[in-house]
Amino acid sequence: MPDEPRRLAAIDLGSNSFHLLVANYQHDRLQVVARQGEKVQLADGIDDDGRLDEASMTRALDCLARFAPFLEGITPHNLRVVGTNALRSADNSQDFIERAEALLDTRIEIIAGREEARLIYLGAAHALAEDGRRLIIDIGGGSTEFIIGEHFEPQALESLSMGCVTFTQRFFNNGELSEKRMRRAELAALSELASIRRPYQKVGWRDPVGSSGTIKAAASVIAATAKSPDGVITRQGLLDLRKRLIKTKRLDKVSLSGLKPDRARVFPAGVAILVAIFEAFDLEEMRYADGALREGVLYDLVGRNSPEDPRFKTLEALRQRYDVDIRQADNVATTALGLLEQVRDAWQLNDDQAHFLEWASWLHEIGLAISHSQFHRHGAYLLEYSDLSGFSRPEQRLLAFLVRAHRRKFPVKEWQALPASEQVSHGRLARLLRLAVLLNHSRPEQPPALPELRASGEALELHCDESDDPNLLLADLEQEIAYQQAAGLELTLR
Amino acid sequence: MPDEPRRLAAIDLGSNSFHLLVANYQHDRLQVVARQGEKVQLADGIDDDGRLDEASMTRALDCLARFAPFLEGITPHNLRVVGTNALRSADNSQDFIERAEALLDTRIEIIAGREEARLIYLGAAHALAEDGRRLIIDIGGGSTEFIIGEHFEPQALESLSMGCVTFTQRFFNNGELSEKRMRRAELAALSELASIRRPYQKVGWRDPVGSSGTIKAAASVIAATAKSPDGVITRQGLLDLRKRLIKTKRLDKVSLSGLKPDRARVFPAGVAILVAIFEAFDLEEMRYADGALREGVLYDLVGRNSPEDPRFKTLEALRQRYDVDIRQADNVATTALGLLEQVRDAWQLNDDQAHFLEWASWLHEIGLAISHSQFHRHGAYLLEYSDLSGFSRPEQRLLAFLVRAHRRKFPVKEWQALPASEQVSHGRLARLLRLAVLLNHSRPEQPPALPELRASGEALELHCDESDDPNLLLADLEQEIAYQQAAGLELTLR
Repeated sequence: MPDEPRRLAAIDLGSNSFHLLVANYQHDRLQVVARQGEKVQLADGIDDDGRLDEASMTRALDCLARFAPFLEGITPHNLRVVGTNALRSADNSQDFIERAEALLDTRIEIIAGREEARLIYLGAAHALAEDGRRLIIDIGGGSTEFIIGEHFEPQALESLSMGCVTFTQRFFNNGELSEKRMRRAELAALSELASIRRPYQKVGWRDPVGSSGTIKAAASVIAATAKSPDGVITRQGLLDLRKRLIKTKRLDKVSLSGLKPDRARVFPAGVAILVAIFEAFDLEEMRYADGALREGVLYDLVGRNSPEDPRFKTLEALRQRYDVDIRQADNVATTALGLLEQVRDAWQLNDDQAHFLEWASWLHEIGLAISHSQFHRHGAYLLEYSDLSGFSRPEQRLLAFLVRAHRRKFPVKEWQALPASEQVSHGRLARLLRLAVLLNHSRPEQPPALPELRASGEALELHCDESDDPNLLLADLEQEIAYQQAAGLELTLR
Repeated sequence: MPDEPRRLAAIDLGSNSFHLLVANYQHDRLQVVARQGEKVQLADGIDDDGRLDEASMTRALDCLARFAPFLEGITPHNLRVVGTNALRSADNSQDFIERAEALLDTRIEIIAGREEARLIYLGAAHALAEDGRRLIIDIGGGSTEFIIGEHFEPQALESLSMGCVTFTQRFFNNGELSEKRMRRAELAALSELASIRRPYQKVGWRDPVGSSGTIKAAASVIAATAKSPDGVITRQGLLDLRKRLIKTKRLDKVSLSGLKPDRARVFPAGVAILVAIFEAFDLEEMRYADGALREGVLYDLVGRNSPEDPRFKTLEALRQRYDVDIRQADNVATTALGLLEQVRDAWQLNDDQAHFLEWASWLHEIGLAISHSQFHRHGAYLLEYSDLSGFSRPEQRLLAFLVRAHRRKFPVKEWQALPASEQVSHGRLARLLRLAVLLNHSRPEQPPALPELRASGEALELHCDESDDPNLLLADLEQEIAYQQAAGLELTLR
């Protein structure tokens, strides 16, 4: 059935709203099947201790329960659920994620700020017909993304820690709406913007475009007063809107034609951020355009594992920056994949996991660029914290864990700290990488002949043939048996 | 008095021996004034918990008390005391260091493995008359360094975790000396060597040279049996020596002509490492040469703050690898040094500290290469753990602390974790860097006009002139006042 469309779905767990998008993909285009959005205001539920409170978790889970029926029949690799700033910053995100994963029966991936920016650009770029260099701005509940790009290529990506929900908490928490409070919020936003203002102006753009709820609402309120064409925010229109807001004096009095009531409370903070953006970048007007994170997530899903998968470029850039010994990395990857094939059925490993084993092999020595001492830890640090375009946090966590675990003691503590659903498979992949590294320990020109490997439950049996230095390999393997034993894992030699 | 020689001293707190070297430097040459060495065997005092025991600390402090009189009259910038593997690895090194610093009234610096290798090469390169590419090997108590270099330029540096004291503990702990135990030690050494064998052979060398006590002793024992010219270890001579050692059957029976009794116990493990090195690199012979870590430390002292100071090259390489925005870094450095000059007297800051403030300014944004989010933490990680040629651990700790502290909350916990002697000055430098970064927040083309800064005790008073965006700067400064206040520090504006 070559013409059967591919049914895709994305859920965006934003700091202000949750969004669901279901679409059919066919002939290089997305055809929207369903759209849902709810103002969950997750970021508003983060208490002073940095934890999501129970009320906000309940709101969020109730919303997801309403989304769930839309996901029926959509296969896992056609579905992605991503979390942004509120889930990035709350200390107990993992609790929420586990409950939400159980409810939706799918994985939830937190994405980093710059990755969010990349996906927003991908969504917006598909929505915009015209070419030319554009500045895309997305004011969210907890972060605001700024992307300059041409066609489908972003040239500058940034995510700043300011959003309409978090700024409402910081500057309008008592409900008062004054010129002074508005200006304080704007100055805080200008301070965040200071670090990107000049670099962005240097890159330049022709066309500023806004793509989020705050900007849509501002455009619609301004259009309702007939000061500008629909979908365009002019500087004067924005400043008039600012004045009108301040005149209402209190958040709970904000009620404007064109503004949905459920956005009213966080609208003034969003407008403050928008005013600061106009000020910092000296904008005359900004156009609203559809297409945001959730659209980007779907286009990204379509491109995964194709030659355009952005993760390949990322992996290549890492190998270059950290001067990876390519031959050794490729040899380890060859051995690792050869070992995986032999236990693939017994250990139920899928193609995705094979990709990650290969990628971890490519990257396992990046920490050497920092220091030989403890280089597995340094590599894991880089993989955990770097902005890796195309990768989600759980994907980075997997790469980081494999690199962390590839030599010396098996890191039991880090292993047990992984989410329960990942422990078995991640542990298995780590053990395959360890053996592959060990078999390539002498850094040969070619990967060594592949020994036979058998898995029975978690027990591994390795059949070692002659090597060019059997005593040496044997000593290494005996050490490895001891390391695995200390982690409660069985490895035997034959 | 242009012809007055400069009196220099170095103490090397090795894992096996402590060494003192005092020399006069004049006309580009070192003239040795005093040499002392004692087999403290510090590494032998590290217990199963990874802590130096009291007995070894006492041995070490007693030894330093005997060294102390030699240091009289030597000014701080002509003196360096460095610690290597045992102090790198013991968990309670800081306790020992504080006691030793009090005893010697000088700072003690732990150096990383590759930095140790660099200094060993520097010492050896000055001792060797001939040119040509050489492989320098230094078997220490806890680590063994391998350096390939030509003239004064190292081309490959590595420090492996194996030494005559730690290998005695691991493989000969019950005093038994058998073929089997010897081979196990050799295989462990070969396993360590496996990762550098091929890369080193690819670089190549003409002349293998050994420069430590183990190698000197081996050469002297072999010469005593007249099997080879004095100062040369032949493969056959080494294998004969290995046989003779195994025949003695017990460590406490080892007694060979040419071997000092106080080295006898750790000699077999050293020979095992040497045998493995001959095997891995397929050596026919190795020459012993004087000149090791302590000589290197003195030559390094002489070159510090000269155009050849290796730290400049290191800083430049960091800026390149992590794509530092040079203009911004230089602007921050200009402002930081301008602020420092104004409080230099009140805060008793010296030239060295000014250098570090400048260098931290150059590097404060390196973490951006990892991620914008928390980039001050990433930069600090890189500076703490990277092998930075020319820098000691305390120097790296200072750079890391300054970068860690340059933005957001003042890191009180990290500040208080610094050694007591460093807290005041490091905190002061951090506050200067914070202000410099803040004044350059808008990433201007040129550094801003320098505001007046006054220090009285720990209180700072900043006189802010007009800026191109006074409101914005004021908001930033108010935030900064709050940050410093939270750390118990006073900053006021006028």
